[in-house]
Amino acid sequence: MNDRKLMTTIESIRMPDREAMDAAERHLNSLTKPPGSLGKLEAIARQTAGITGELVPDLSARAVIVMAGDHGVCEEGVSAFPSEVTPQMVHNFLAGGAAVNVLARQANAGVFCVDVGVNAELAHPKLISRKVRFGTANMTREPAMKREEAVAAITAGIETVEQLYSEGYRMFATGEMGIGNTTASAALCTVLADMPIEEAVGLGTGIDEGRRQHKIQVVERALAVNRPDAADAIDTLAKVGGLEIAGLAGVLIGAASLSCPVIVDGFISTAAALIASKIAPQSVPYMLGSHLSHEQGHRQLLQAVGLSPIIHMDMRLGEGTGAVLCFHFVDAALLIMQEMATFESAGVSQA
Amino acid sequence: MNDRKLMTTIESIRMPDREAMDAAERHLNSLTKPPGSLGKLEAIARQTAGITGELVPDLSARAVIVMAGDHGVCEEGVSAFPSEVTPQMVHNFLAGGAAVNVLARQANAGVFCVDVGVNAELAHPKLISRKVRFGTANMTREPAMKREEAVAAITAGIETVEQLYSEGYRMFATGEMGIGNTTASAALCTVLADMPIEEAVGLGTGIDEGRRQHKIQVVERALAVNRPDAADAIDTLAKVGGLEIAGLAGVLIGAASLSCPVIVDGFISTAAALIASKIAPQSVPYMLGSHLSHEQGHRQLLQAVGLSPIIHMDMRLGEGTGAVLCFHFVDAALLIMQEMATFESAGVSQA
Repeated sequence: MNDRKLMTTIESIRMPDREAMDAAERHLNSLTKPPGSLGKLEAIARQTAGITGELVPDLSARAVIVMAGDHGVCEEGVSAFPSEVTPQMVHNFLAGGAAVNVLARQANAGVFCVDVGVNAELAHPKLISRKVRFGTANMTREPAMKREEAVAAITAGIETVEQLYSEGYRMFATGEMGIGNTTASAALCTVLADMPIEEAVGLGTGIDEGRRQHKIQVVERALAVNRPDAADAIDTLAKVGGLEIAGLAGVLIGAASLSCPVIVDGFISTAAALIASKIAPQSVPYMLGSHLSHEQGHRQLLQAVGLSPIIHMDMRLGEGTGAVLCFHFVDAALLIMQEMATFESAGVSQA
Repeated sequence: MNDRKLMTTIESIRMPDREAMDAAERHLNSLTKPPGSLGKLEAIARQTAGITGELVPDLSARAVIVMAGDHGVCEEGVSAFPSEVTPQMVHNFLAGGAAVNVLARQANAGVFCVDVGVNAELAHPKLISRKVRFGTANMTREPAMKREEAVAAITAGIETVEQLYSEGYRMFATGEMGIGNTTASAALCTVLADMPIEEAVGLGTGIDEGRRQHKIQVVERALAVNRPDAADAIDTLAKVGGLEIAGLAGVLIGAASLSCPVIVDGFISTAAALIASKIAPQSVPYMLGSHLSHEQGHRQLLQAVGLSPIIHMDMRLGEGTGAVLCFHFVDAALLIMQEMATFESAGVSQA
């Protein structure tokens, strides 16, 4: 297994800059508001200072990375949508018509779609082609992929972030497209976050309760057939995960290694964050939670990673839509740091 | 009591346009996403269509109205900050240095500060002067204000919205400043939302648990002395409420009468929404919830009004800061309506 790139990247992740965080805290407490009264907006300001080492970093160049991959397990009838929707939606991202495109434009963010494992020949000038294989295998019969394929997909994520960093991007959000990927994510939660299958398996893009019971049995079979090693996140990822999930784990690790904040989207992105947290625990302080998905297992999954969601909108679309909405909050936090009056400058009495 | 203006305004509130809401729903379901998967973003699109009668209304001209007033009950030592902070912060709003100014600039919103009852002589070219009296009386000894003063403050809110509407503003957010106003809001919750005092009284801008116990006793005394009539929201507002809370109730009713969406900020703004919901229940469909405050009683208060918060940031500043952040979500919902591809236009298969 060629995991040298992954290992050197993980080793290069620094601890957040405690001094910058303390300086941010002192500045926040000098502003005309009760200390701490802006809640998580203040936490974001402290965190971005710690991540970048700058009191008010320039995070205006930001990108959402949408990893796309297919899932062999779709043969088992786990999704409301057919697999062909994955490549169709890739074209929609590239044409700028999907929800994430609309919300990214609003937030002045670029959308970069990566084919890390779509089960179709795709070619488009804007597509980042890093295909590791044409979709995963059906995990109820065999491992979803080989261990080296999982590592290759993680590496594709790292290198995508590195490329975008070299183009000037300094803040990232995770997004994904992959019909069937709530099933793979639920399997990962069951093994790596110690969640009961009944909790981890949800309604995805919109199946009914009967189909959810079937989906639970599919995950049970996949786990019985593959026996993933809970102490080995890459083994688990390879056996019951997905290529786009692996790619996003790479995005999260890569962003951390480059001292860039990265916003984690919904259920599938958080499953990728769970993988990243297992193989590179030092990447977690670089992650920001975004929204609490309608998908039932998301709350517990976020807790397992140690992320706290800001937006409660009952969204369940993926693509990075919830993460992209949080760019506004990072901007807000930085503007508060830059523009608010202090008690002294405004002549306001303190408590 | 001159409540003619209030009565005619309430009578002019229309029902939301059901046809426009259905048309919005149909359009949302034609877009390339599982039906309903954008959650509350879709709900906002339906609601703004119903409020305005237009599928994609132009809500680009928006304003946050910050009502300021003082509280005689501050004599009882209920707040972490001295009363002089109210006029000091009014000057901060007018100079553009407060948190709400920063966040409103980010959201392209105007900030309009209204002196409806600050206990100081204030004059500034940008200040909207609608002073009803110099702060409320100490409600542990006598009614906070007379019934006609409460009505005058509500009317000031209505007329402020009417003035801004005439200047072109089509969407509003509520904000407030008034040292001591979590105490008045807690009293209102106790009477009108049937909340136990222990639940309704929180830590405000940052008192400790010992001071909170004292604050509970202050509210108990105010209720015992004034015996507000729970069946009469204006009586309750006058006896244990506040001038800025009354003003905001007027803002909410006025916005509804002009078919404009209005975003409700935190604990104090939601207490104003509770008043509005009692005296003009038909105003509620014009309100959008924004954030869930750190103030402990806010969740139950929102439920009493029938509002659902989007942002969970542990904010507890007021001023309209949480409401203003939600302008981004209204923009997002309208951009989704305008810019997203349909299943047909993008050639994507449906479920």
